[in-house]
Amino acid sequence: MNRGSKMARQVLAGIDLGGTNIKIGCFDGQLRILAKDSVPTEAHMSPQTVVDRLADALVCLVRGLGEDARLLAAGIGSPGPADYKRGIIFACANLPTFKDVPLPQMLSSRLGCPVAFDNDANVACYGEFVAGAGRDVQDMVFFTLGTGIGCGIVSNGRLVQGATGNAAEVGHMIIFPGGRQCNCGQRGCVEAYASASATARRAMEAIQAGQPSSLRSVLEVKGQITSKDVYEHLALGDQLAQRITDETARALAIMCVNMLHTTDPARIVFSGGMIAAGQVLLDRIRYYFQQEIWRLKKETVQIVFASLGEDAGIIGAAAMARDLAGRS
Amino acid sequence: MNRGSKMARQVLAGIDLGGTNIKIGCFDGQLRILAKDSVPTEAHMSPQTVVDRLADALVCLVRGLGEDARLLAAGIGSPGPADYKRGIIFACANLPTFKDVPLPQMLSSRLGCPVAFDNDANVACYGEFVAGAGRDVQDMVFFTLGTGIGCGIVSNGRLVQGATGNAAEVGHMIIFPGGRQCNCGQRGCVEAYASASATARRAMEAIQAGQPSSLRSVLEVKGQITSKDVYEHLALGDQLAQRITDETARALAIMCVNMLHTTDPARIVFSGGMIAAGQVLLDRIRYYFQQEIWRLKKETVQIVFASLGEDAGIIGAAAMARDLAGRS
Repeated sequence: MNRGSKMARQVLAGIDLGGTNIKIGCFDGQLRILAKDSVPTEAHMSPQTVVDRLADALVCLVRGLGEDARLLAAGIGSPGPADYKRGIIFACANLPTFKDVPLPQMLSSRLGCPVAFDNDANVACYGEFVAGAGRDVQDMVFFTLGTGIGCGIVSNGRLVQGATGNAAEVGHMIIFPGGRQCNCGQRGCVEAYASASATARRAMEAIQAGQPSSLRSVLEVKGQITSKDVYEHLALGDQLAQRITDETARALAIMCVNMLHTTDPARIVFSGGMIAAGQVLLDRIRYYFQQEIWRLKKETVQIVFASLGEDAGIIGAAAMARDLAGRS
Repeated sequence: MNRGSKMARQVLAGIDLGGTNIKIGCFDGQLRILAKDSVPTEAHMSPQTVVDRLADALVCLVRGLGEDARLLAAGIGSPGPADYKRGIIFACANLPTFKDVPLPQMLSSRLGCPVAFDNDANVACYGEFVAGAGRDVQDMVFFTLGTGIGCGIVSNGRLVQGATGNAAEVGHMIIFPGGRQCNCGQRGCVEAYASASATARRAMEAIQAGQPSSLRSVLEVKGQITSKDVYEHLALGDQLAQRITDETARALAIMCVNMLHTTDPARIVFSGGMIAAGQVLLDRIRYYFQQEIWRLKKETVQIVFASLGEDAGIIGAAAMARDLAGRS
């Protein structure tokens, strides 16, 4: 019996759960976006309330696609660390009420479809892998430069998840033993030097230590400096901004060298707020990569910026939903 | 037609091609060893001569198993770097005549069976994974501490090979930027501090710089110090040997921290000549791992010694041969 045009139109959902906003997207099987929305997280509310709001917004979005639209599967990315294998957020700085919360299971009951779940950086990495800057390679490493440094690794076409689901926390790779204190409790992590926040912090410390810089007036007026300020003053020729940028780029380049020697990616993709710095940052990372890399053989890895912008998370989550639906 | 007891008995071969010796093993489908042999490499001879000698020794070994024994597939591990994807050794310090040599293809023509090919450390890692210290986990990292530091990575039950087949060169992870010169051309690699050779070299340098140590007489008599000497004098209470051991253990521990944050292994396995140092080295690596690791969550990764000794390479190569035969 051919039901023709009456057949349900299958929709995939991708969800990016952040501390401030929840981004939601609906996609077809080719991961073309059909609709998207963003709702405030209201992170002080209970996990059940957050899940209900998110599910309501998603159901509403699917309904808007027409009567024949039916949700096949959803994917959701959340900040870590979590027990991604068992599907439990055990604690999260940006979601203070989430203690031992079985997020994908709660969402699955509410939506009546299977739900894939992973770290927000892994999900964004997967988005760039299936539809963005890594879509033509099988091995890539992805970094997002913001408050911290998020990471995702694709090896032989699959996301590396690890024994506990906490692989790809490469921002916490130690490259300066005994060095700067990181929020994670370690010393000398890349993240403590080269995230957007750490870059701004190093600039502020240098100015407070008396180093001359055109950034001093910014600090005096605003009471703080952002990485955006650093790159603006770099463009204006400030020497401190130049040194801070170089130190950031070198730390990121060493991280790239170390990842080349670990999973041997064809492409390394940077994303996140700090890539707004533009070509100057990319050029300095590539320069230091060439300075630091071995001479045993010529390396062909490409270091590039991400191409999907803020949609990487919902696209990646939808791609995970598609994989999950394909397996079940 | 049932040929009953006349059916050929299928044999897998595992080969470990070193600069000095070629180890060869014959295995059944459960990777139980049936016979093994070792022949000198004669690395000054042409690649064809080396391949012929190796093939002759293997054919002889198989013949010794009985008339019904038939070679199903072989696996071979060689020192890197090479083009493992295309199956070509382009240059190798320990095999000076091997320039752009299609080793697996040459061996396959000679033996009349498919031949798997990978880096010697990957092959030994795979041996420990299928039959040794990692046989009950799906995610492991393997290090061999000798002249250099070899590495293999298993993620979700598969060897990580990378875009060019040169993944898992983690001995060349930079952890002391701008630090000691490594043979690879980089500065500050783990290998430049914590291989067996680098450990011995740091002890010699300290003595030459005038530091007091019971190792001084060894250096005067033998003209050099080995890592074995360092661990012997550590057992005798020498303070320099203690400091050298601690620096080696800390560098290895930082490498373990960095791999935990990369592929999230359930187990990290050390092998190679330097593990003869015994429990004292393992204890110090574990101690520094606990000192350096983050506090965001409790880590359960196990750091252990390998269990297969020198047979890891031939067992791993035979396991790769089995995988290859299963695919074809």
